[in-house]
Amino acid sequence: MEPGPPGSSRPTEPGPCLSAQRGADQAASASLQRAARAQPGRQPLAVAAVLPAGGCGERMGVPTPKQFCPILGRPLISYTLQALERVCWIKDIVVAVTGENMEVMKSIIQKYQHKRVSLVEAGVTRHRSIFSGLKALAEDQLNCKLSKPEIVIIHDAVRPFVEEDILLKVVTAAKEHGCSDYDLEFGTECLQLALKYCGTKAKLVEGSPDLWKVTYKRDLYAAESIIKERISQEICVVTDTEEDNKHVSHLLEEVLKSELNHVKVTSEALCHASRDLQQIILDQCYNFVCVNVMTSDFQETQKLLSMLEESNLSFLYPVVVISVHFLDFKLVPPSQKMENLMLIREFAKEVKKRNIWLCGLLISYPQDEQKRQESLRQGAIVIASLIKERNSGLIGQLLIA
Amino acid sequence: MEPGPPGSSRPTEPGPCLSAQRGADQAASASLQRAARAQPGRQPLAVAAVLPAGGCGERMGVPTPKQFCPILGRPLISYTLQALERVCWIKDIVVAVTGENMEVMKSIIQKYQHKRVSLVEAGVTRHRSIFSGLKALAEDQLNCKLSKPEIVIIHDAVRPFVEEDILLKVVTAAKEHGCSDYDLEFGTECLQLALKYCGTKAKLVEGSPDLWKVTYKRDLYAAESIIKERISQEICVVTDTEEDNKHVSHLLEEVLKSELNHVKVTSEALCHASRDLQQIILDQCYNFVCVNVMTSDFQETQKLLSMLEESNLSFLYPVVVISVHFLDFKLVPPSQKMENLMLIREFAKEVKKRNIWLCGLLISYPQDEQKRQESLRQGAIVIASLIKERNSGLIGQLLIA
Repeated sequence: MEPGPPGSSRPTEPGPCLSAQRGADQAASASLQRAARAQPGRQPLAVAAVLPAGGCGERMGVPTPKQFCPILGRPLISYTLQALERVCWIKDIVVAVTGENMEVMKSIIQKYQHKRVSLVEAGVTRHRSIFSGLKALAEDQLNCKLSKPEIVIIHDAVRPFVEEDILLKVVTAAKEHGCSDYDLEFGTECLQLALKYCGTKAKLVEGSPDLWKVTYKRDLYAAESIIKERISQEICVVTDTEEDNKHVSHLLEEVLKSELNHVKVTSEALCHASRDLQQIILDQCYNFVCVNVMTSDFQETQKLLSMLEESNLSFLYPVVVISVHFLDFKLVPPSQKMENLMLIREFAKEVKKRNIWLCGLLISYPQDEQKRQESLRQGAIVIASLIKERNSGLIGQLLIA
Repeated sequence: MEPGPPGSSRPTEPGPCLSAQRGADQAASASLQRAARAQPGRQPLAVAAVLPAGGCGERMGVPTPKQFCPILGRPLISYTLQALERVCWIKDIVVAVTGENMEVMKSIIQKYQHKRVSLVEAGVTRHRSIFSGLKALAEDQLNCKLSKPEIVIIHDAVRPFVEEDILLKVVTAAKEHGCSDYDLEFGTECLQLALKYCGTKAKLVEGSPDLWKVTYKRDLYAAESIIKERISQEICVVTDTEEDNKHVSHLLEEVLKSELNHVKVTSEALCHASRDLQQIILDQCYNFVCVNVMTSDFQETQKLLSMLEESNLSFLYPVVVISVHFLDFKLVPPSQKMENLMLIREFAKEVKKRNIWLCGLLISYPQDEQKRQESLRQGAIVIASLIKERNSGLIGQLLIA
């Protein structure tokens, strides 16, 4: 993966790892990667991508063109750009957008810090948009550092789940097979266009189910659910370094593990110097549970919030933080602590500006072992719901388990 | 639509109206309906449906076969059956399931009160399953009241969003065109199977985007979102008959209307004799907001809950009830009312058994007009989230706006 620019607070990889390659696949992929990156005694292949994004999304049934429809607040096309940016051997990405959407697209590139992206004006058809992109690459019309590529990947702006391995297959096939007569005759017209205007070699390569295209409104729903699922695969439970609190935190960790199959649950001590916690943030865990025992204070939660704010973790995905307060409801009825706990709404409002979604959760912590277990289980269910559903309407809420 | 059986508490139509036909479409559809129901001087067409449901869902990546995957707690195939049942001129529905899923299927039919459904054992392939279904219809192997049909619709168990108009087009085309040589040559093999074994006439008819098939896990996500959206199109705000409370209820109604585009918001007086409220329940509104002003009592909410329990509305979809309590947080800090308000958890537990999802919401009701408006708006945002996301993890929670 591409290293972050020096001095940048941007995470090394701009998103969670979208693929999980194993065994033979991994070995094959590694060898392909070497091929694309550099061959012995040769320069690495010069690869660029063109994204036609001039569509108006008439099949979607919504006024916004689908490439600009928001998923967790971020436009779809930004997810596609993120997927391509992760592939370090794609040197340039040219996006073709209509004149009226040029400013919107510029602000997306700026807000989500997309790199290696240039814009051209889209044509009236998809093919003309691709042509504009190819021409810009061939002639460097943009007067910037576009390098004339050997291979150009044409990728729909509305296929956000493209993986490096399929892109490698495309590039390798293009390199090895060139452009066969069969593909030109029976493939899509894009192939002919590429040959006619740029002499660029192209071939059809089998896609994967992940490569599906967002076409209808239902596809937006599906994309949102997939993204929510992907960023909910890890939860970090944090608390201060006191032994008692660490114990409760560990109990919660165990219950979360048994409630949430396939979700990685870690627990870490919360202190500013903690390298492990810093590493978890760098590794892009998007879900944090801050455990507070027998207190309605938010000191620890605030510590965590400032670490997260400094890390810049939340600029691509909303980070969920749940401030959990274990109280013995018999000793201290929650009503007594309410005034202080209600402060969470103010904190939540503040960090929401940074795309950090804060909620509070009171968990009853009775003396009785069995009751405690049940109450922990209830708490884990609420935590799981908040993380999986990532419902912005619940920001600043104080829930009770 | 099919009238409910006499004495049954089942709603007239087993689900929200899934189609919205207008103008010319509506006229055409009405004439088609007359054709399928009865032609002058003729018997109505005898139509049956066969649902192959023997698949194991290997592409889904989940252990449960996709037709049995739950959406809002109910298996996918039940939604498909519901869509076919709404079409009164489909006389029999034959479902082909594997031996090992026979009991599961029987319990689904019983639990969701499906009518006109018979079961046959699926074959090892989709075609053999269809064959089993057709044979049962031709020979009445099931020894029940299956009537030999003129036309059989073969419909995938995993296409839950089928509409009456497309089924009518299929039936009318079958009736008018018969089975052309072209379709037999180039259509799916099902057409040949139907002709070979049953002499049943068939023709290919253009489908609609709604007819899409649940194949991958992302399709399940999309189906769930579509169903959630469909049952969130109407909210009923209820309160007692006191003028002051009706005023607050009306204010909330107005804010909900301005926050929620395209959602119908009505308000009704809550009393057992209310015909209007009974009618709203009969018309299958799945979302209720019970307004309580300056009280932490649940009397009104309990009245509403018993009406809903009696209505049997919730047996197909979870009904969301939000008990909203307007309190002046300055006069009465919420902490004072907490003990009583916490009782909501017990009520929620109880009605959850009947698929009614109860939550509480405190809304601050200050004297200041502007603050009150802001607080109402916050409340409306939380209400909208709870209804749209329909998150079971939040059942019994007390939220604060």
